[in-house]
Amino acid sequence: MTPSTTVTELRRDFHRHPEVGFCEFRTASRAAGVLADLGWDVAVGSDVLAPGARLGVPAPDVLEAAYRRAAETDADDRFLPAMRGGLTGVVATLRGNHPGPVVALRADLDALPLAESDAPDHVPAREGFGSRWAGAMHACGHDGHVAVALDLARRLSDLDFPGTVRLVLQPAEEGGRGARGMVAAGVADDVDVFFAAHLGMGLPTGTVCPAIPGLLANSKLRATFRGRAAHASMAPEQGRHALLGAAAATLGVHTMPSFSGHQTRVNVGLLNSGTSSNIVPDTAVMLLETRADDGAVNEDLERRVRDVLAGSAGMYGLELDVELVGAVTTALNDARLADVVERATRAAGATVTGPGAGIGSDDATAFMRRVQENGGAGCYFGIGADSPAPHHASRFDVDEAALPVAVAVLERVFRAGTATN
Amino acid sequence: MTPSTTVTELRRDFHRHPEVGFCEFRTASRAAGVLADLGWDVAVGSDVLAPGARLGVPAPDVLEAAYRRAAETDADDRFLPAMRGGLTGVVATLRGNHPGPVVALRADLDALPLAESDAPDHVPAREGFGSRWAGAMHACGHDGHVAVALDLARRLSDLDFPGTVRLVLQPAEEGGRGARGMVAAGVADDVDVFFAAHLGMGLPTGTVCPAIPGLLANSKLRATFRGRAAHASMAPEQGRHALLGAAAATLGVHTMPSFSGHQTRVNVGLLNSGTSSNIVPDTAVMLLETRADDGAVNEDLERRVRDVLAGSAGMYGLELDVELVGAVTTALNDARLADVVERATRAAGATVTGPGAGIGSDDATAFMRRVQENGGAGCYFGIGADSPAPHHASRFDVDEAALPVAVAVLERVFRAGTATN
Amino acid sequence: MTPSTTVTELRRDFHRHPEVGFCEFRTASRAAGVLADLGWDVAVGSDVLAPGARLGVPAPDVLEAAYRRAAETDADDRFLPAMRGGLTGVVATLRGNHPGPVVALRADLDALPLAESDAPDHVPAREGFGSRWAGAMHACGHDGHVAVALDLARRLSDLDFPGTVRLVLQPAEEGGRGARGMVAAGVADDVDVFFAAHLGMGLPTGTVCPAIPGLLANSKLRATFRGRAAHASMAPEQGRHALLGAAAATLGVHTMPSFSGHQTRVNVGLLNSGTSSNIVPDTAVMLLETRADDGAVNEDLERRVRDVLAGSAGMYGLELDVELVGAVTTALNDARLADVVERATRAAGATVTGPGAGIGSDDATAFMRRVQENGGAGCYFGIGADSPAPHHASRFDVDEAALPVAVAVLERVFRAGTATN
Amino acid sequence: MTPSTTVTELRRDFHRHPEVGFCEFRTASRAAGVLADLGWDVAVGSDVLAPGARLGVPAPDVLEAAYRRAAETDADDRFLPAMRGGLTGVVATLRGNHPGPVVALRADLDALPLAESDAPDHVPAREGFGSRWAGAMHACGHDGHVAVALDLARRLSDLDFPGTVRLVLQPAEEGGRGARGMVAAGVADDVDVFFAAHLGMGLPTGTVCPAIPGLLANSKLRATFRGRAAHASMAPEQGRHALLGAAAATLGVHTMPSFSGHQTRVNVGLLNSGTSSNIVPDTAVMLLETRADDGAVNEDLERRVRDVLAGSAGMYGLELDVELVGAVTTALNDARLADVVERATRAAGATVTGPGAGIGSDDATAFMRRVQENGGAGCYFGIGADSPAPHHASRFDVDEAALPVAVAVLERVFRAGTATN
Repeated sequence: MTPSTTVTELRRDFHRHPEVGFCEFRTASRAAGVLADLGWDVAVGSDVLAPGARLGVPAPDVLEAAYRRAAETDADDRFLPAMRGGLTGVVATLRGNHPGPVVALRADLDALPLAESDAPDHVPAREGFGSRWAGAMHACGHDGHVAVALDLARRLSDLDFPGTVRLVLQPAEEGGRGARGMVAAGVADDVDVFFAAHLGMGLPTGTVCPAIPGLLANSKLRATFRGRAAHASMAPEQGRHALLGAAAATLGVHTMPSFSGHQTRVNVGLLNSGTSSNIVPDTAVMLLETRADDGAVNEDLERRVRDVLAGSAGMYGLELDVELVGAVTTALNDARLADVVERATRAAGATVTGPGAGIGSDDATAFMRRVQENGGAGCYFGIGADSPAPHHASRFDVDEAALPVAVAVLERVFRAGTATN
Repeated sequence: MTPSTTVTELRRDFHRHPEVGFCEFRTASRAAGVLADLGWDVAVGSDVLAPGARLGVPAPDVLEAAYRRAAETDADDRFLPAMRGGLTGVVATLRGNHPGPVVALRADLDALPLAESDAPDHVPAREGFGSRWAGAMHACGHDGHVAVALDLARRLSDLDFPGTVRLVLQPAEEGGRGARGMVAAGVADDVDVFFAAHLGMGLPTGTVCPAIPGLLANSKLRATFRGRAAHASMAPEQGRHALLGAAAATLGVHTMPSFSGHQTRVNVGLLNSGTSSNIVPDTAVMLLETRADDGAVNEDLERRVRDVLAGSAGMYGLELDVELVGAVTTALNDARLADVVERATRAAGATVTGPGAGIGSDDATAFMRRVQENGGAGCYFGIGADSPAPHHASRFDVDEAALPVAVAVLERVFRAGTATN
Repeated sequence: MTPSTTVTELRRDFHRHPEVGFCEFRTASRAAGVLADLGWDVAVGSDVLAPGARLGVPAPDVLEAAYRRAAETDADDRFLPAMRGGLTGVVATLRGNHPGPVVALRADLDALPLAESDAPDHVPAREGFGSRWAGAMHACGHDGHVAVALDLARRLSDLDFPGTVRLVLQPAEEGGRGARGMVAAGVADDVDVFFAAHLGMGLPTGTVCPAIPGLLANSKLRATFRGRAAHASMAPEQGRHALLGAAAATLGVHTMPSFSGHQTRVNVGLLNSGTSSNIVPDTAVMLLETRADDGAVNEDLERRVRDVLAGSAGMYGLELDVELVGAVTTALNDARLADVVERATRAAGATVTGPGAGIGSDDATAFMRRVQENGGAGCYFGIGADSPAPHHASRFDVDEAALPVAVAVLERVFRAGTATN
Repeated sequence: MTPSTTVTELRRDFHRHPEVGFCEFRTASRAAGVLADLGWDVAVGSDVLAPGARLGVPAPDVLEAAYRRAAETDADDRFLPAMRGGLTGVVATLRGNHPGPVVALRADLDALPLAESDAPDHVPAREGFGSRWAGAMHACGHDGHVAVALDLARRLSDLDFPGTVRLVLQPAEEGGRGARGMVAAGVADDVDVFFAAHLGMGLPTGTVCPAIPGLLANSKLRATFRGRAAHASMAPEQGRHALLGAAAATLGVHTMPSFSGHQTRVNVGLLNSGTSSNIVPDTAVMLLETRADDGAVNEDLERRVRDVLAGSAGMYGLELDVELVGAVTTALNDARLADVVERATRAAGATVTGPGAGIGSDDATAFMRRVQENGGAGCYFGIGADSPAPHHASRFDVDEAALPVAVAVLERVFRAGTATN
C-alpha cells in the first residue's frame, strides 16, 4: 500500500485473491505488512490464534496448497511463515496520544468457496477485478472489511485518538470457526470496548444501522455416512447405500419445524457421495447447519437434526459420524455503544436506519461475549451497501461507494472515544 | 514383456496402474507395444475408435492429466500420441497358417474410480501390487482380461491356427461408453465370429460357463439440477435449493417398481452438490443408471426415471439437464459357439458350469449385435475366479490361478477353429 | 338455559357435544334458542350464511349424519331445520336504550376432529364433561367462546348500553371456512365496530392482551393424487403408486424454506391412501396448509407448495387435483379499540399483558376487513386461560376461572360504548 | 342352489356379495349350506379354524357389522352363528365308493377392500352383478373358486370316485392370514394329497398350467407411528409429526434393493394419518408387505424394512409399533401331481401351458407344507381366465367361460384318483 492507495483499490486487490477460511495466507500476511509499515504493533500466528481451539480446519494438504499459492503470489514474507498450517490471524495495536480504554475492531479475512459470476454486468468481471482463484469468491463483503480496516489504520496513524485501538483480523468467520481460536489466545481479554461492523446486510448505501439485533446462534456439522460398496447390478443387496441414507437425511433436516416465537434456520449446504453410476456408494459426506435466535432453541434444533441423521443412517444400516465443525453463540448489543455509532453516523453525513430483514450469524459474538463477561461493552453494526444479489450469491457485489462511508463513520467512532459515554 | 513374463506378472503390472475409462493411456499403449513386438498388425487411436460415438468422455483437463501421468510413467511412446484425448482403443490382427474366418476376442482396458483396500489380507496390498494411483482400482478383473489377451497373443504368434484372429482392446467398458465408438469405427464389420470372456462372475476358479445369459440392457444418465444460491440464513427464500431436488430424485429413482417377469435395476451412484453449510446449493450433479433384461423394459424404466428427475426439479423450481452418458443393449449367445467353448473347457481340463447368480451388463454386446447383424455369431462366456469380495468392491481380487485356465481355454478355442462347427 | 345457569355450566354442555365445522347443528340451534328466549332478534341459516361462499364443506352424507345426531339429541327444533346442509350460522341483534353505533362480537362454534384425552388428570374426563361424540373435541376453546357470548347476552338484556349489539356466531372457524360465507351474506355490512376475542393463546388466566398482532394469512388445500391400482406383487409395474407421490409431497412441503423477516408455517395434517398391503394405492388424499404473517408471502409460499405437489405427482405419473378449502387473510387492529379493551380490562380487575409467543390465524379477519373497508374499526384480543396442553392437543383444556373474567371484560367493553372514544 | 343352478350363476351371486377376510359370513355360511344339502359332512367355526392362529383379524366392531349385514341378507342360519367373530372357515368331506387316499381341494372365500368399477364395459356392471357392498370387490377370482368348488361337489355327490374328498374353504387368503388358522385346527393333518387351483394368473381362457412355480414367501406388517399432536401454527415445535416419519418410511421401504438371483417385492399399500390441516398428526398407521421367492431372502428383506421403519421413527422422535399381520411361506409342487393335472387337462380338452409372467403368494402353501411334512404331496396349479385388467384392479373380471373348464379339469383330477399314480 502506498500513501495514495485508495480503499477501493485495496478492496479490489483482496477481491481478486479470495482465500477461504484458514487459507487466508496472502490476505492476512499482506494486511499484517501494511499495518507494520504504518507503525502498528503487529502479532500473527499462534500468538493470536490458539490452534486447537479452531473448528473445521481444512485438511493439511489443502492448507499447504493454499500456503504455497500465497508464497508464489505476493504474500508478505515477513509474516507468512508464522501462519503456516492455517494460523492466519492478525492483531495490530496502536496507542493514541490521549488516555482512554482499549477499543477493538474486528474485521474478517475469509472468502467463500463459490465460483464468481463472469456475467458482463457483474462489476468485478466488467472492471477486471473478479476472482483470479477459481472456486473462491468474496461474496460476503469481507474484502471490503479488510480494506476499510487498513484505511482506518492509516488515518489513525496520526495517534490523535484516546486510548488504544486494536484491530483484530480474524480468519474463518464463515462457518463460525475462527473467532474462538483468537478468543482462546486471549486477544480480547484486555479489551474494554468491542466493535464489529458488516457491510451490506440488505441496507442501502449511505445508511448505517447502529445495532444489528438478533444475531443467530448456530451449529455447523459435518456428517459422514459409511455403508458398503457393491456392484449395483450384480449384487445390489450386498451393498449398504450411503447416498440413500444421506438423501433421506437431507430431506429430513429440511423438514424441521418452525419454533413459535423464534427465528430458526436449517440448511444442508453440501453433499458428496459416490464415484460411478454402477457402484453402490459406500460413503456420503454432508455439511449442514442449524441457527436460532436463542441458544437453547439452537441446542434443541441441533439435537433434533442429530436424531434425523442417526435415524437416516439406521434406515439403511449405515455407520454415522457427526463432527461439530463450527459453533456461534448469540450476543446482545450495548445501547451506549449503539449511541456512539449513531452519533458518528450523523457526524459523517450518513443516514441512521433500522435493521434490514435479513438475519445471520457472526462469530464476532465470541469476542463480544468475552469482552462483556469482563465488564466491557460490545456492539455489532451494519453499514449499508447496495448489491445486485444477496450475500453468498455468485453475483453479490459491494457498492464501492459504501467504503468511504464506512471509513468515515469508523474514524469518528474511534476518534470520539467511547469510555466517556 | 519379455519372453518369460508370466500372465500373472502382466496382470499385476496392469493392476498397479489402474486407469479409468478413456484414460487408459498407459495400459493401451503398452498393450499395443507388446502386440506389435509379437508381430501383430496394430492399429490405435481414431482409426479404431470414432471419437464422436463415445459416450461419457471425461473433461479435457482430466484426459490431459491422465495422458501426462502416463507419459511420465512408462507408456509406450510409439502408440501414446495417437491416443491423446481419450482415443484409447487398440486393435491387433494376425492371420494364421490355415484358412478360416475372422475370429475376434474383446478385452476391456479400464479400471474403476474406487479406492483400493489396503487391508493386510487384501492380496494386492500384501503382495505389493496394489493400486499406485489413488482413487482408481481394477475391481472388475479387466487387468486380468488384458493380461490373458496378451499371453494368448504370444501363444498364437506361432500362426498355427485357422483364419484370422483379431484382438479388440476396448476402453471404457464400465458405463457402456467405449464399445460403440469402436463399432462405429468399423472394427467389427468384417468379423465372422466374436467372443468376449469375463473373469469372476461369481463362478469358482477352475470353472467356465460357456454362455452367460441375460446380459442386461442399461442406460447411464448424468442429471444436473440448477437452482439459485443464496445465504441460507439471511435470505433462504431467495435461493432455489438444488440439493433438495436431487435428494428427492435420489429417493424417487430408487422407488421404481419391480417389473413382473423381468430383472431390473436402478442406481444413483454419485451425487455432488454445494460448497458450504451456509449457502443454498445452486447445483447438483448426479450419475445414475437403469438396467433390464429386456431392451423395451429398460426403455420404460428409463422413461420413468426421467419423470422422477423432471418432477423433482419441478418441486423446487430447478432447471434440469439430463444427458445420456452410457448405453448398452442386450444380446443373445449363439449356441454353436457355446459348444465350442464347452469343448475347449473340457479339453483344457476345466469344469463346465452354469451361470452364477449375478447379472450385469457389458457393452461387448455392441460388437456381438453388429457381428450377428452381418450374419456372424457371438458368444459371451464366463471364466471362474474366486474373489473375497464382489465385483466393484474395494476388496475385489481375482484369484490368479484362474489366469492360466483362461489362457488355456481361449487358446483351444482359437486353435480349434469355429467355422467348421 | 335457566336464569341460574352459569357460564361454566354452559361451557361444559357445549364441551360435551363437540361438532366440527358446518356440523354445529346442536350448538348453533341451542345458542339461537337461548338468544331468542332472551329477547334478541335471531336470524339463522341462509339468511346469515351464503352457502356458495363457504369453503371446505363436508360431504352431504356427513352433514346429514351430523344433522340427524343433533335432531336425536337435544337440538332446538325452532332453528334446526333452517340449518340443514351445513348452514350453521347465527346472528342475534339487540338495540340498547342509548344511542350509538352497531358493535359486533364474533364467537365461533366449531370443534376439532380430534379424540379427547381420557386421562384421569384431564379435567373434562375427571369431571365428567368430556366429549360424548368420539372423534371430535373442543380443543381450541370455542366452547368457552359460545358460553361467554350467551352469558354476555343475558347481562346485556337489560338494554343498558349504547347503540346496537350484534352477536355473530360463526361456523367452521377452524380451517378458515366459515366467516367468508357470513361476510358474503352481509352480516358485517352495517357494523361500525367489530370485536373478536380468543381464550387461551398462551396467556395466563386473569390477563388480557388488548390486541393480538400478527394474525397469519393462510391457505388450506386438499390435494388428491390419482394413480392406478395393480397387484403389488404380480404386476407392480402396471400400477401408478399414488401413495409414493403423496409421501414425496409430504416431505417436500415440509422442506419449504423460512422467509427472512417473516413468520411462515407449512403443515401436511392429513394423508389417507390405499386399502391393502398387496394393492398399489390408486388414490391419496392430503390436507395441508400454508401460513404467513404477510399476504404476499403466503401467496408465494402457496405457489411453491403447489409446485411441490405438481412435481411429486409428475415423478410418479399421477394425476393431481388441488382444491382451496380454506383461506384466511391478515388484518390489523385499530389502536383506539385496543384502548377500549385495555380500559375495560383494568376496570374488570384483570391484568393487561402483551401477546404470547404463539401465533395463529383466525378468519375473524374476514369480518374485520369488511368493517374496516366500510370505514369502521376492528380489534382482535386475547383473554388469558391456563391450559395443561397447547391448543389443538388432546389434553387442551380452558381454565374455567377465565370465563367470568372474559364476561366481565366484554360487558364493560359493550356498556362503555366505543363510538365516543 | 337348486339342481339347475349353473356355476356362472353361483359365481355371480358371490360376486354381488363380496366380503373381506374373516368377514365372509354370508359366503361361508351359504357355501356350507349348499354342501350340507348335497350330503357332505360339513364342519365350520372353531372346529376348523383355530381363532388364536389367525393373523390380521379385523376389529370386533368391524366383524360384528359384517356379521349383522350377513344376517340381514340371506346368510344360512344353520351355520352363521358358529362363525361369529370371524370364524369363517368351512370343511366339507365326502367318502367315495372306491378305496383311496384323502384328497383335498382348497378354495378361498374372501374379497378385496376395493371399489369395483362401474364403467359400462365392465361386465359385472353391464350385466348387473357388480358388487352391492361398496368398498369391497371380488377382484382376484375367489368368487369363481367357491362357485367351481360347489359345482364340483355337486358332481362328486354320485360318490363315483376313489378315497375321500375334502373341500377346504378358507377365509382371508388375501394377506396370508387365514390358512394358518385352519392348519392349526388340524384340517390338513390326515390329508394325503392336496390341491389348490387359481383362476386367471395371466393365463388365457382354455389353458391350464399344471404347476405354478415360484410362489413367493411374504410378510405383512402393520406399522403404527405415534408422535404428539400440537397446533401446527401456534406451537409446531411441541408436536412430533407422525406423518413425516411415515412418509419417510414409505419412500424408504420402496428403496429396498433388488436381490441378485431372486424375485423380491415391497409395497406400502395403506397409510392413514392425521385429522386436520392445522394439527400436527399424532398417529400414522401403515400396512406394508415384503415378498421373495425364497424364505431366507424374505426374512432378510423384512429385517431391512423393519430397520427402515425404526430409523424413520427415530428421525422424528416417534414411537413405533410393528405387528406381523400376515405371513406366507413358499412351497414346491410335487411333480407326480402336476402330471395328474396335466393329464386331466388334456382329457378335458383344455390346453397345457407354462406359467404366466406374474408371480404372487398364496397361503395355500401352509396346507401344502403340512401335507408334505406328513409324507403327502401337494400341487398348486393355474386355470387360465382372460381378464381385461390385472388381479386386484377395479376392472378385473374373470372370463366366465373359464369356469366350466375349471370344473371339468378338477372333476377329472378327483375321479381319476391320484394315489395310484
